[in-house]
Amino acid sequence: MNAKIVTAGLLVIGDEILSGRTKDVNINATAQFCTDLGIELSEVRVVPDVIDTIVEAVNALRKRYTYVFTTGGIGPTHDDITADAIARAFGVALPIHPVAREMLESRWKESGTEVTAARLRMARIPEGADLVVNAVSAAPGFRIANVYVMAGVPVIMKAMLEAIAPTLEGGRKVESRSVSAGVGEGALGDPLAEIQSRYDDVKIGSYPQMGYGHIMTYLVLRSHDIARLDTATAEVQALVDKIHRDKNITLPEEAKP
Amino acid sequence: MNAKIVTAGLLVIGDEILSGRTKDVNINATAQFCTDLGIELSEVRVVPDVIDTIVEAVNALRKRYTYVFTTGGIGPTHDDITADAIARAFGVALPIHPVAREMLESRWKESGTEVTAARLRMARIPEGADLVVNAVSAAPGFRIANVYVMAGVPVIMKAMLEAIAPTLEGGRKVESRSVSAGVGEGALGDPLAEIQSRYDDVKIGSYPQMGYGHIMTYLVLRSHDIARLDTATAEVQALVDKIHRDKNITLPEEAKP
Repeated sequence: MNAKIVTAGLLVIGDEILSGRTKDVNINATAQFCTDLGIELSEVRVVPDVIDTIVEAVNALRKRYTYVFTTGGIGPTHDDITADAIARAFGVALPIHPVAREMLESRWKESGTEVTAARLRMARIPEGADLVVNAVSAAPGFRIANVYVMAGVPVIMKAMLEAIAPTLEGGRKVESRSVSAGVGEGALGDPLAEIQSRYDDVKIGSYPQMGYGHIMTYLVLRSHDIARLDTATAEVQALVDKIHRDKNITLPEEAKP
Repeated sequence: MNAKIVTAGLLVIGDEILSGRTKDVNINATAQFCTDLGIELSEVRVVPDVIDTIVEAVNALRKRYTYVFTTGGIGPTHDDITADAIARAFGVALPIHPVAREMLESRWKESGTEVTAARLRMARIPEGADLVVNAVSAAPGFRIANVYVMAGVPVIMKAMLEAIAPTLEGGRKVESRSVSAGVGEGALGDPLAEIQSRYDDVKIGSYPQMGYGHIMTYLVLRSHDIARLDTATAEVQALVDKIHRDKNITLPEEAKP
């Protein structure tokens, strides 16, 4: 069993997210991707298209986490400055990469697209980086050290995550269990805190929600240690069963996890 | 005319966002809220329910921006530790606030809800903070110095933003204009960069998208200075018109901004 905890930071780059013009979907996609691989997504930052800000954020995150994923800012226009920022963060040059250029030119040939200086911006790759292929639009992302630079367009971001998945080291997978309670959080707080205090290796999250005509709380337990997780879950289930009996609450079958 | 640039940082607190279990919607809601008030949302961070991490992020953001908004972690359960983190970040105590307690108890009386230690956690407010009212569930948020601490439940977060809006100083409103081009970003890059180079007070963003049967690029220009914005927009529109003529592209009326 792999005992290593593998962490990641995500950097979302783009004015359009911060202005509210675009609703981000890459945070959730990356979060689910990490969870599936047993990687703990530990932090997300969203920053504007400002080179110094991107450099600072990349340098902070890459020292702190096993992996850093970036999304956005690798297209052909002047506001696409992620490659420039990454090259500066690592103190390396940003030449045209011959293989990236080939990938792009062969796609452009197919579609009769003219080669322009703007389009060739997409072939600029920091020195020493490996390419991350992009089957959707041919413009590659890249990896330098522990930083993976990917596209902001959600379908391309997803394809790039799938492309890098086999190269990532997964950690101990976090397993989860859930318990549904037909009461609000306030009815659970004290005894739940008592259970949590005895399980520092199990994280118990509590998520109130409306459902089935009344307030519900979904309790989600997460741990690397399945035996401890199951014992803690049994305790939480017993607590919820007791509350349901005391308050004469019967949950419909479909409300159970 | 108010010449001040007013900035904000947003801190989203919650394991459920980082694990992918919950899709965040508060980032976009806050971004739109800021844009409407002329506040520039400059950075977003998403952090887990870990007290030291929250303290560090709050301290970093509150020094950097005019306002900091936080969302999440102010409920009644053990994993709701935002108030604790804020009190620690400011080095102040976290007593039960008499007015917050009254708000909660009067709501609980109406609904026949028992007062428990867990529920009273929601009345703990850092010393020196003002309350932010919550019409939805009565549990208040609070403001301490330039940090506004609000709920994670989206409908309550929105209500709290509306509640604080009149107390916030708006900046010079950023106006925006858009131009639709019936070509990909690559066809625009070089001449667009040339226009951008002459307008350092206008930000030109470029957003490719599929639409009307072919690739489209939406160009969004943003500036505090309306006269400059309109001149730059006219230049971009003229560039796009020329490309459309050269390539014999006619956009349908509904594709125009």
